[in-house]
Amino acid sequence: MTKATVSTEHQDYKVIHDGNVASAKGFSAGGLHCGLKYKNLDLGWIYSEVPANAAGVYTTNVFQAAPLQVTQESLKVENKLQSIVVNSAIANAVTGKQGLDNAYEMRHAFADHLSIADHYVAVVSTGVIGDQLPMDKVKKGIQEIALEQPKADHFAQAILTTDTCTKQVAVELDIDGETVTIGGVAKGSGMIHPNMATMLSFITTDAAVDQSALMELLKGTTNETFNMITVDGDTSTNDMVLVLANGQAKNNKLNADHPQWPAFVSGFHYVAETLAKKIARDGEGATKLVEVQVKGAATEVAAKEIAKAIVGSNLVKSAIYGTDANWGRIVCAVGYSGVPFSATNIKVAIGPIVVVEEGLPVPFNEEAAKNYLMKETVQIFVEFQEGEGTATAWGCDLTYDYVRINASYRT
Amino acid sequence: MTKATVSTEHQDYKVIHDGNVASAKGFSAGGLHCGLKYKNLDLGWIYSEVPANAAGVYTTNVFQAAPLQVTQESLKVENKLQSIVVNSAIANAVTGKQGLDNAYEMRHAFADHLSIADHYVAVVSTGVIGDQLPMDKVKKGIQEIALEQPKADHFAQAILTTDTCTKQVAVELDIDGETVTIGGVAKGSGMIHPNMATMLSFITTDAAVDQSALMELLKGTTNETFNMITVDGDTSTNDMVLVLANGQAKNNKLNADHPQWPAFVSGFHYVAETLAKKIARDGEGATKLVEVQVKGAATEVAAKEIAKAIVGSNLVKSAIYGTDANWGRIVCAVGYSGVPFSATNIKVAIGPIVVVEEGLPVPFNEEAAKNYLMKETVQIFVEFQEGEGTATAWGCDLTYDYVRINASYRT
Repeated sequence: MTKATVSTEHQDYKVIHDGNVASAKGFSAGGLHCGLKYKNLDLGWIYSEVPANAAGVYTTNVFQAAPLQVTQESLKVENKLQSIVVNSAIANAVTGKQGLDNAYEMRHAFADHLSIADHYVAVVSTGVIGDQLPMDKVKKGIQEIALEQPKADHFAQAILTTDTCTKQVAVELDIDGETVTIGGVAKGSGMIHPNMATMLSFITTDAAVDQSALMELLKGTTNETFNMITVDGDTSTNDMVLVLANGQAKNNKLNADHPQWPAFVSGFHYVAETLAKKIARDGEGATKLVEVQVKGAATEVAAKEIAKAIVGSNLVKSAIYGTDANWGRIVCAVGYSGVPFSATNIKVAIGPIVVVEEGLPVPFNEEAAKNYLMKETVQIFVEFQEGEGTATAWGCDLTYDYVRINASYRT
Repeated sequence: MTKATVSTEHQDYKVIHDGNVASAKGFSAGGLHCGLKYKNLDLGWIYSEVPANAAGVYTTNVFQAAPLQVTQESLKVENKLQSIVVNSAIANAVTGKQGLDNAYEMRHAFADHLSIADHYVAVVSTGVIGDQLPMDKVKKGIQEIALEQPKADHFAQAILTTDTCTKQVAVELDIDGETVTIGGVAKGSGMIHPNMATMLSFITTDAAVDQSALMELLKGTTNETFNMITVDGDTSTNDMVLVLANGQAKNNKLNADHPQWPAFVSGFHYVAETLAKKIARDGEGATKLVEVQVKGAATEVAAKEIAKAIVGSNLVKSAIYGTDANWGRIVCAVGYSGVPFSATNIKVAIGPIVVVEEGLPVPFNEEAAKNYLMKETVQIFVEFQEGEGTATAWGCDLTYDYVRINASYRT
């Protein structure tokens, strides 16, 4: 719980140096190796000292994995959670009745270990589809979980699959004179496409937050952040985002009527957006984060469709990998996004370099564009004069390594 | 016009050995180098001795290229075409007023050269977006077109961009005691995604066909063939399919009331499907043709969505490249296709190897599956018990070479 805040650039909140999912009061987290992976950590846990108001959003894939069903059952009882247990390497998806039984057993084993009610536990899995969990290993691992030896970094590691790095962030802000902290962690590298969260993320806060306000906040924020990233257009069977608010900061309960609700929303949004961008940047094989900003579309929905079409285009992604300012592919993606617009008023810029104006190419310095595209973060701006719709989407470049990783992931 | 027919496997038509777009009576075609490419042929033409009933389908991309606008204008006048002129290397897309003027000029130059009316000429371009056509080169090339020295192979070469091979086919059948021939040619390697034809194809027949029947036939067939292929999910600005029926076979005019209409439809469908599969197999960087057959879906639309989701999945495509029988990714794609269904009745087979039954994995011989996936054509079968909806989609694997080609195409 190091709290050396380093940033003062935001009005409403400060970013905590090395902040993580256990930065908020009353939360702890850890991870260990139980034998699902060859060597790396593969079993993680998050714990709150008290049951926390909780909410979740889940994949829209028809083949929703067993743990998602069990977690939703947990939440239905009181809309509260006290702990989360996650395994990586095996998704427990498309595993039928036995998979469901295993998810219940995994939940019960952890609840029993903690001496709390089953419905205070969320179970989560990520990894290969179709294999059954080796429950002996999972249960033995759960027995070894020691709440008194937490290490949030180990949790962040334990949930990874093809990810190359952990993804954590936390902010703090003042609510009712109390310091409120919001921390989060995420994983996700392939099977990433905007349609519900398409990855895993867990966000914790010690703020007291009204349960229905928390659910609305999670849904709204997810639509602006996790649902605006794409790596490969494949929406996974296992993705979810959970938020836990345990009230340990002792602020007055937050909801939309609280005068500092906007500040809390802004901090929460920062946490979610930061995690979403970390996921996009760590897309399988990626060398760059790509951010597409759309302005002036007829509606927000239109802006989102256009932003996602560009960031999802294999041709745009390949061109960015090749540092080729191929604006034609950007315009082409805009054209097939399914959104009607006047082709004569579009403006496109690659970073600071305007490449299309009033629907027509403008001369630009190819060398400068190539240099810009070598950066680790590439921004694409598309502007219409159709209305007020704006949106931002995030993705990554398409590289040889994406193919390498996915031609050999399972075997 | 070699007509050594080699196949008798089809009831209604025979496949012509080395058949092409000029196999039908009264058609000729050729190609030459006019200087848009460094060395390869880049200007192609098709000519019919008489004006032919014609129909076209065009990309749904909002940025429809200039030549598509001009060709549609040509067709509007009489629904007849006598010739087609195509350049490769430059798409004449997103080129504004000057691009449109150039397309008109290109049409006029060819009409003038042939001494026919402008509206009997279709103009077509494919290549890089945003560059203007160097009209001096194009017009000089058109002047050099010699109808008396046709070579259909040269046409097939002249329309290629990143394609690695030409794509041609023809069939013949008996209608009213007359031999009727249907021939076709296509190009298309990247920016391929089912939404209108997303590539170029030209189909010619010497059959006499009623114009509105021809249009319906083209639309219906395109939806079952060209619109069911995907290489990378990117719908181009320039794609079109044109059909010309010049009546030189002297059959009674065909329409839906003609007793042999079904035979003609079947031959036409074979030509379109063969070209579509050739395009998919030659997808940028592809090493394999992937065919996905869906049966028993609630509706045909549902079957199509599911087939296209599977064949379009980067993860499925990468797994096939890696000869990994990763059925989990197939099931995952089915799950996010947007089509509701019962997850417990799905059956999946990779070639002859059943991998999922009643929604659950079944044990299979991994070695046999790996061997099957090494074939040049990979079939995936997905079966539901929801209704009578069936569909077939075609695509290719995703390889290092796709990335290589597209990271460096423009520059």
